[in-house]
Amino acid sequence: MVNAATARSPFTALTPDVLARASRVRLVLTDCDGVLTDGGVFYSAYGEEMIRFDRRDGMGVERLRALAGIETGIVTRERSEVAARRSEKLGIRELHLGTLDKAAALEDIARRRDLSPSQVAFLGDDANDLAALARAGFAGCPADAFEPVRDACHYVCHAPGGHGAFREFAEIVLHAVLRESPRP
Amino acid sequence: MVNAATARSPFTALTPDVLARASRVRLVLTDCDGVLTDGGVFYSAYGEEMIRFDRRDGMGVERLRALAGIETGIVTRERSEVAARRSEKLGIRELHLGTLDKAAALEDIARRRDLSPSQVAFLGDDANDLAALARAGFAGCPADAFEPVRDACHYVCHAPGGHGAFREFAEIVLHAVLRESPRP
Amino acid sequence: MVNAATARSPFTALTPDVLARASRVRLVLTDCDGVLTDGGVFYSAYGEEMIRFDRRDGMGVERLRALAGIETGIVTRERSEVAARRSEKLGIRELHLGTLDKAAALEDIARRRDLSPSQVAFLGDDANDLAALARAGFAGCPADAFEPVRDACHYVCHAPGGHGAFREFAEIVLHAVLRESPRP
Amino acid sequence: MVNAATARSPFTALTPDVLARASRVRLVLTDCDGVLTDGGVFYSAYGEEMIRFDRRDGMGVERLRALAGIETGIVTRERSEVAARRSEKLGIRELHLGTLDKAAALEDIARRRDLSPSQVAFLGDDANDLAALARAGFAGCPADAFEPVRDACHYVCHAPGGHGAFREFAEIVLHAVLRESPRP
Repeated sequence: MVNAATARSPFTALTPDVLARASRVRLVLTDCDGVLTDGGVFYSAYGEEMIRFDRRDGMGVERLRALAGIETGIVTRERSEVAARRSEKLGIRELHLGTLDKAAALEDIARRRDLSPSQVAFLGDDANDLAALARAGFAGCPADAFEPVRDACHYVCHAPGGHGAFREFAEIVLHAVLRESPRP
Repeated sequence: MVNAATARSPFTALTPDVLARASRVRLVLTDCDGVLTDGGVFYSAYGEEMIRFDRRDGMGVERLRALAGIETGIVTRERSEVAARRSEKLGIRELHLGTLDKAAALEDIARRRDLSPSQVAFLGDDANDLAALARAGFAGCPADAFEPVRDACHYVCHAPGGHGAFREFAEIVLHAVLRESPRP
Repeated sequence: MVNAATARSPFTALTPDVLARASRVRLVLTDCDGVLTDGGVFYSAYGEEMIRFDRRDGMGVERLRALAGIETGIVTRERSEVAARRSEKLGIRELHLGTLDKAAALEDIARRRDLSPSQVAFLGDDANDLAALARAGFAGCPADAFEPVRDACHYVCHAPGGHGAFREFAEIVLHAVLRESPRP
Repeated sequence: MVNAATARSPFTALTPDVLARASRVRLVLTDCDGVLTDGGVFYSAYGEEMIRFDRRDGMGVERLRALAGIETGIVTRERSEVAARRSEKLGIRELHLGTLDKAAALEDIARRRDLSPSQVAFLGDDANDLAALARAGFAGCPADAFEPVRDACHYVCHAPGGHGAFREFAEIVLHAVLRESPRP
């Protein structure tokens, strides 16, 4: 069913450049707030309490891993225990909290995993993601990202943050990787 | 008022195939996340904390039971205490948590209730619902389901998950069942 | 500013019948879930935990009271401590929880307050509001109400439940009442 | 990247009056509910529990401070511990809870900071913000503000409250201030 799915219409509009970039991806890194979420943070009288993630994005993490052996990592400026819990649930091992220089983090992670930055995809939505997006082989953002971010990305998702952006990006990577080297 | 309601415009666009399938339904099974919810999961520093359900879907569960004697069941991969609480509130007795093979679950539930799979409706939204949807007599999904799921369903709701999809599906079943055998 | 506001465009589209009905209103009764909320109920592993209300609806309750001396009441089937807290915050004294027969409740409340049902407005969104809506002098519903409810109302709000419906309805009542007997 | 961003298309539609007003701003004051939020308040059985803020608005507070030395303040009628926690997180020092007369608060804050009201921007969304908006040198509101508020503002954001309105307003101020006196 996956092959049928990945051969379908949403992918016919992808440019050769996007397909080529996506097909080289071996690791997907993503910002948390504004990408895995819609930017919302729920405060109580005790401070930040909750964040809304999306189960469908979680399925994207799983599908990248199960169908193409591609891991996902979270790189965020926030020192967020909430992001840590979400990360554990999805079996994400590249979790980088309190990251001020995301471009350096991207390069460190790539080096440690014997990847070139061109093999790393990055999803971000705001000003502090710009440098990392410029380093990544495949740069994407949600539909509702900060305008300079949208201008800096190879692919702007149709879906906004927290409502399908990560999943859309993951399915494009899956599609591009699997058509290059289909699994038996 | 119900008869007036069920005879109205939203139903005139239903195909004869959809009406025939819906009229045979004696049990409605549904995925939880992405169908009864919009896919959102609220995390705190302690992990998954809350899920948003919709009171109008609850009214759909009640109306299926009260007006047509049709029960509803939840079949989900998550081992979710949250889904269990929602289930209790609605008096749902078919609650299947941690279900990896939803198609097998559908067949087991049908057999135990002396129903054929053609008498079971299934609502799902993502890749792991595809097999169960293929088994169900009447397969439906929210408007924002994963594209291969939308392609595999007899009926794609106008409403997205968590915002009316279950209720819309339930009202179609009610309409089709009651026009076959109206209650006095 | 209020007079300027209430004389403006949103109100020019109101029919004479709606204006006449609204001008007689001395009490506004409203369902809770689906009207003051978007129908959402947030569950945790301990059951129903939270409901989202809207501050702008609260301002509608205050403006009805301050500018026209019109009180608001909540009539809901749920035995909801959450609705009780919201009610206290807004100074609402007519709070009717666990109400199965909302039409009878409307009549009781009206009688106790020496009002005729034609002086009572009711806002509802689902099947169990139909009888009360039929009794009310001015019946309204959110844009996303159950279709038979939309058909049964004198006024269907442009705003959906939980996102401005109550406030829109309250401003219409205010407009109609104040143009009949403007305050000095 | 900031200059590139601030020189871009969203700003070309700004009128000379809006640009002139925005360029004089040295302090941004904002209402909380309906501006930094979508108006939603989450109640539990214990009363008001949580409010949803947006990380992207927080980035707006930071960018105003870091790129133009402009501080932000919150002025709200609610005595909200929740707003206080959000304020602390963003390093906001002008926090005015329980403020019934927002216009007087605006004037007090301006006087204390040796600013004229024409150097103060105010963002509000509802009836109780009207007087403060009339005093501010640059008055703005979210797209979904109360209609009389929209009529009273120099700038109506394209974004609704809680979903980008504050950030949009902040970027306009930044753009206007930085083009007057670009930082090296």
